[in-house]
Amino acid sequence: MEVYNIGIVGVGTVGSGVYKQLKRKASILKKKTGISIHIKAVCDKDTKAVRKAGVLKRECVPSYRDMIKDPEINCIVELIGGTSIAKNIILEAFKKGKDVVTANKALLAEEGSDVFKAARKLNRQIFFEASVGGGIPIIKGLTESLVSNRIIRILSIINGTCNYILTRMTHDGMSFEKALAIAKAKGYAEANPSLDIDGIDAAHKITILAELAFRKKINFKEVSCEGISGIKEWDISFADQLGYVVKLLAIAKEGSEGIEVRVQPTLLPKDHILANVNDSYNAVYLMCDEVENMLFYGRGAGAKPTASAVISDIIDLARNSLGFRQKLYLPSLKAAHTKSISSILSRHYLRFSVIDRPGVLAKISSILGRYSISISDVIQKERKIGQVVPLVLLTHETYEKHIQQAVRQIDKLSVIKRHSRVIRIEE
Amino acid sequence: MEVYNIGIVGVGTVGSGVYKQLKRKASILKKKTGISIHIKAVCDKDTKAVRKAGVLKRECVPSYRDMIKDPEINCIVELIGGTSIAKNIILEAFKKGKDVVTANKALLAEEGSDVFKAARKLNRQIFFEASVGGGIPIIKGLTESLVSNRIIRILSIINGTCNYILTRMTHDGMSFEKALAIAKAKGYAEANPSLDIDGIDAAHKITILAELAFRKKINFKEVSCEGISGIKEWDISFADQLGYVVKLLAIAKEGSEGIEVRVQPTLLPKDHILANVNDSYNAVYLMCDEVENMLFYGRGAGAKPTASAVISDIIDLARNSLGFRQKLYLPSLKAAHTKSISSILSRHYLRFSVIDRPGVLAKISSILGRYSISISDVIQKERKIGQVVPLVLLTHETYEKHIQQAVRQIDKLSVIKRHSRVIRIEE
Repeated sequence: MEVYNIGIVGVGTVGSGVYKQLKRKASILKKKTGISIHIKAVCDKDTKAVRKAGVLKRECVPSYRDMIKDPEINCIVELIGGTSIAKNIILEAFKKGKDVVTANKALLAEEGSDVFKAARKLNRQIFFEASVGGGIPIIKGLTESLVSNRIIRILSIINGTCNYILTRMTHDGMSFEKALAIAKAKGYAEANPSLDIDGIDAAHKITILAELAFRKKINFKEVSCEGISGIKEWDISFADQLGYVVKLLAIAKEGSEGIEVRVQPTLLPKDHILANVNDSYNAVYLMCDEVENMLFYGRGAGAKPTASAVISDIIDLARNSLGFRQKLYLPSLKAAHTKSISSILSRHYLRFSVIDRPGVLAKISSILGRYSISISDVIQKERKIGQVVPLVLLTHETYEKHIQQAVRQIDKLSVIKRHSRVIRIEE
Repeated sequence: MEVYNIGIVGVGTVGSGVYKQLKRKASILKKKTGISIHIKAVCDKDTKAVRKAGVLKRECVPSYRDMIKDPEINCIVELIGGTSIAKNIILEAFKKGKDVVTANKALLAEEGSDVFKAARKLNRQIFFEASVGGGIPIIKGLTESLVSNRIIRILSIINGTCNYILTRMTHDGMSFEKALAIAKAKGYAEANPSLDIDGIDAAHKITILAELAFRKKINFKEVSCEGISGIKEWDISFADQLGYVVKLLAIAKEGSEGIEVRVQPTLLPKDHILANVNDSYNAVYLMCDEVENMLFYGRGAGAKPTASAVISDIIDLARNSLGFRQKLYLPSLKAAHTKSISSILSRHYLRFSVIDRPGVLAKISSILGRYSISISDVIQKERKIGQVVPLVLLTHETYEKHIQQAVRQIDKLSVIKRHSRVIRIEE
């Protein structure tokens, strides 16, 4: 078993999430990758946060400098955010031959070129999947999976706080102020929510995506940025009447006249796939020359989803550094115990072709009752006595095998004129 | 510049797509990756297909055997499909020290364990992103990005033909037979469409996903599989009345009683994110323990999207084999020419707070007219003469700068009581 040593700087929401997830998943990660990710050192100037995360005494170091000078540590995981100290940490780590994983969108958007330049010069690597879209693998998607594509346009919902507030305003008719208060109470918005609601966080993220997509340096100061605090209940309801929803979109397009990068409230037609991305979910919609349209959707924030992205970077880096070339799915697979279809529990749609005659429903439902199948909905259309008509029932949760047995019996009834149709319901 | 030599077996829809895309994108792929992907040999027993794909004479070889014995070829790209010959090609390629890229879902689902076993034994690699979901990076997502997650459930729409037919039945009230005929005419369905409409293609794909997700061998013969040919217009319209849509879902779940893998028509609530995946689009919805819910959506078939996935595998393999460890985004970035926000052309939503008084709309629209801004929609609510009311206009496509200039003038009118609100529309 190869060991890969990491140091974690910062154990706030994301850092403690990474710490706990690495501990919780240590054994399965070893099994999947053949590598043991060893947390050799952790630091945070907030000692309370360190205790709260459950960091072991032997893992604690007083400063990130202790980590950076430890020759055994391969990778620094920078999760303190902000631009000044974080930048120092990363540059010093590169100088000491260490690679870096970060979730720091502000730093990458505002000073990414310095950081990338240093990495190139010192032949170091910096991975940052968690910087945009939380658990959504949009960085890997853009850079690896879409390698042969020209990206034409990115439309994205990449600030969960704003999307949550706009969803509450849209679905529950709330004012901006009330929705913001609820977002704060739920922990979706900071005490000072300006970075989110003024669109700055989304602007950081779209800057990173635009640089990767168009392979050009974007000047963050030139990114046009408008937040959602001016959106009134009026706007939401007028938009609704006109067939639109209001979303905070982060947009990047490359055209003949240059690159356009902006964050702004936007009216989207209700049947647009992004119009249905609600609550604190994020989504990135890409238009490309080869794969056409593609959407990545998921949790754009939160300790666990973001930690999942950080860990995928750590694993990639470890595998790269240790020279692992095989993909992750080759280990020999044990045969699965396959669940028999008949033991599956779900709701069902049943459609019978019956002769329309008094007592038919009673006959069918008595057979269903014998198998403890209870009915939630019935549709029986205009009556045409003596003719064949469809009778539709929805059931409550029932075992597939009971449905099959009951339908087999029902199909023998003289009032049934064709094989009945069973369709399962997935909620 | 490092060179990576490949041989392509099969130049049908996908194979010719890969051939053409590699040629078309040769220079940008070199720039992005530092590797020149060189098509050293191509074969297909259908010589007409070879000519149609535009394969150069010097690239043609009579048989895959010529490719496999060529010591300069690093990788065989198997795109003939089917289980028997394809399996031979892949096993022989492994024996000769070559890695493989394939899109062959039938082979991987039915005989994947033999293929993986051989790869392990001979220390070879086989990449197969294109086998499920066309251009959608679901294989990489599952195996790399979600490495620290336990996958709880997969709900997927992974057969574009069935999804197209069900969409036509749902949106246009067509019969199954008519929708199938249109799918055939559009090239979405084969002359013999059984593999698609009977659910077998989807069953192959969900078998592959379930094996990767649960890391267990799934016996393809045990996968429960039901197609869509029994779905009647009735079922679609009854489902609609009850708040559901009918989709062909491929489902995999792991529970305490074992693994459940099945393909079947399913009723989904209309607000489920998969309910809005229409036409020939595919989508894979994952429920995971760390990232919660995630969706990958895109083109599940077609020459260009599928070729994009094949090429991402070839690049991954080339980078792995040549020992490239840096990610793809590090090359130094030239500064972008950023388009000025004022030169952006789009439709706009304008909300004015006006004193409700005759002639107000005329005043506003005359200013808009001066800037050549034309109006598509107006909403003026119940009149309250003398009070402040909202007046909402949607414009046709207009330059942002004209909107800004016009609104600045309008805001100076005495009938305007608050700053006006401008929201762009994205169609």
